[in-house]
This record gives sequence, C-alpha cells and structure tokens, in this order.
Amino acid sequence: MIPKGLQVLISELGRLPGIGPRSAERLALHLFLGGREGATRLGNTLLHVHEDVSLCPVCGALCEVDPQSGTAKCQICQDPSRREDILCVVEKAVDVLPLDKSGAFRGQYHVLGGKLSPINGVGPEDLRIKELFDRVRNGGVQEVLMALGMDVESDATVYFIARHLSELGVKVSRLAQGLPAGASLEFADGLTLGRAIENRLTVQ
Amino acid sequence: MIPKGLQVLISELGRLPGIGPRSAERLALHLFLGGREGATRLGNTLLHVHEDVSLCPVCGALCEVDPQSGTAKCQICQDPSRREDILCVVEKAVDVLPLDKSGAFRGQYHVLGGKLSPINGVGPEDLRIKELFDRVRNGGVQEVLMALGMDVESDATVYFIARHLSELGVKVSRLAQGLPAGASLEFADGLTLGRAIENRLTVQ
Repeated sequence: MIPKGLQVLISELGRLPGIGPRSAERLALHLFLGGREGATRLGNTLLHVHEDVSLCPVCGALCEVDPQSGTAKCQICQDPSRREDILCVVEKAVDVLPLDKSGAFRGQYHVLGGKLSPINGVGPEDLRIKELFDRVRNGGVQEVLMALGMDVESDATVYFIARHLSELGVKVSRLAQGLPAGASLEFADGLTLGRAIENRLTVQ
Repeated sequence: MIPKGLQVLISELGRLPGIGPRSAERLALHLFLGGREGATRLGNTLLHVHEDVSLCPVCGALCEVDPQSGTAKCQICQDPSRREDILCVVEKAVDVLPLDKSGAFRGQYHVLGGKLSPINGVGPEDLRIKELFDRVRNGGVQEVLMALGMDVESDATVYFIARHLSELGVKVSRLAQGLPAGASLEFADGLTLGRAIENRLTVQ
C-alpha cells in the first residue's frame, strides 16, 4: 500500500544506526510531506559530503577537501602553532573533537580507526598502527599520549602500542583515570573509586 | 573543527523530527564513514521521492506516480472491487495504511490533512473539507465514516463535518470507542472504561 518510492526511502533510512522501522517510516513521511525543497537539500548534501570532506592521510582525522586542488587539507596537521613532539592517539576520528575542544592538548593527533579486538577479528594490521610507528620513526616525537576509552580492548591496544614504542625510545602516557568533573562520591561506582584511590595525587 | 560539508549534513539531519544535535552528528558520521555508496544511495532516493510518489488528487492518500504519464495513480481510488457508497475520512495520509491493513474497510478514503484547531489557527479552509463535501455532493455516497483520533480537536472536526453532511442527507458514523483488542481491565484507564460502558453492546 505504501508507494514504492517511499518504501525505498524508508528502507534506506532504516539502515541508519538507531533508526528502527517505525522511525524510518516517520522520517520518510516527514521528508515527503515536508515538500520537495527539504528532501532535495538533504539529498544534495549527501551526494556532496564525500567531495567536501575527507580523512587526513597523515593523522586520520576529519578534514575539509581543498576545492581547488582536491586534496585533503587538515587544519590540525598544518597548524604551525601546535607542538610536534607530542602525539595524541585516539580510537575514532570523532574523538579528536571533544579533546581539542577541551583546549588542554595542543599537539598533533593520530586516529587508529578502532581498537584491537581478537574476538571481533580486529588485529594490528586493521588499524593505523603501522602509520603511527612510521610517524614516530620519522623523528621529532617525544611522547605518545594514548587517549583511548576505559575498557579491556582499549587497555590491550594501549599495552600493545606501548611495548613497540618503548623500543623506539618514546615516552608513552595515557589519560588519567579517576572521578569525572562535578562528580559526587555518592554516585561514583566502585571501579572508578578504586582507580581514583590507586592513582591518588599528592597535594602537599 | 568539524569540516563544513559535514556540518551542513549535521544541520540538515537535525531538522528531522526526533533527531537531536547529538543524533544528527552520529548519523552524519555514520553516513560519511560508511562510504560514498550508502550516502549516494540515500541522497538519490531523496532527490527522486517527489517524482515517484504523490498525493492522490481525489482522496489525498499516498500514491505512486505513473512513470509514463507522470500523473498520480491511486490504487485505492481505481480499485473497482471497492465500495463507492462509503467514504472513510482520516486525518493524515498515513492513517490509511493501518485501516486498510485491518481489512475491515473496503470503501474509499478521504484524507483531511489535519484536524480543526482554532488554537493552532487551523480552520475548515485549511483542510480538504470542501473537497469532501464536493465528493459527497457528486452523489453515490451513502455513509461517511469519521476515522479520526480520540481527542478534543478530532471531536470538533467530526461534529463540524457531521453538521454539514446531515444537510446533504448522508449518514455519518465514527469509529467505536472502547477497550482495545487484548486489553485487560486492570490496565484500562477510566476514560476508556467509561466510554466502553456508555457504548456497551447488546449480547443477547
């Protein structure tokens, strides 16, 4: 009963993460009943996003494509005010955004594109680990800050990379673990509190 | 820091109902990182949906556009096996789908495109009410079944239309109110139970 053109749109929208069949139907109808202009605008944006946006071949972060040369132009890699002796390693391209917004890190980034996970068949060759080692081998890097999550796979990835980097004589650090800003002890979980006690800081 | 092409996509997705800024960001990144093919497919579908799908000029329901003639081809209006003496009036084009799926109605539909709502500035001239009266005046319709919701605005719409249709000598009915299928009394609300008692059916 639903016209075919709409059914195709519903099934395409239903492929998106977090969009179930009912949401896909609602969105498709909104896009159709909202008129040709809105649907065309979103459609054209989707057709052009891969021309305008790319991943930086050096750090792997999201960057704009220079419309003249057609090559990726990474604002972070090309910023001369940023330190080049410290690399911050993250799992996903999007992880760069909150870290950079914090203003606490002014070095370069390196996106792995995932984390080691034997259970999901993700090995070192599936990540941008070789590229990381090459960047360090090229010299100039004193410290690699591992900014991965606080789960088992992230831990494994940190230790794997740290073991290889230590052979290259580079300092490897990772993000501190402890209470988040604004947290009250009342609602903190045991694991977080345990880490916070273990890694307690000297005040005086 | 987010490339402009991606920012445009995020803001376009953020216009959709139920998609907040965080969901829009997640969807945009999924569409970008998922590769050019998926984004292009959804983009092209959006660009063509208004060519392939239309609203039937007679009943207002969703229908396919005939690729040869370019005119709307409504399966329901053109189905000779359906009764033409009973019209089912619904609020939205999508309301036709569950009603028709139920199999309990085999007449024609008429989509109003909304309900009367003075508070939102929706008057009779904003809905397809004139078109409904014209269809009835053209003859052949014996009964108009109002299949609107169970809220105040739907009630007002039903009574407005019923008053005018009674002058044309047409029977006006509305959907029964009562317990939904599979309901247990334990969880039924007072208003529903009240209506179910009021409209109780004779068994013997």
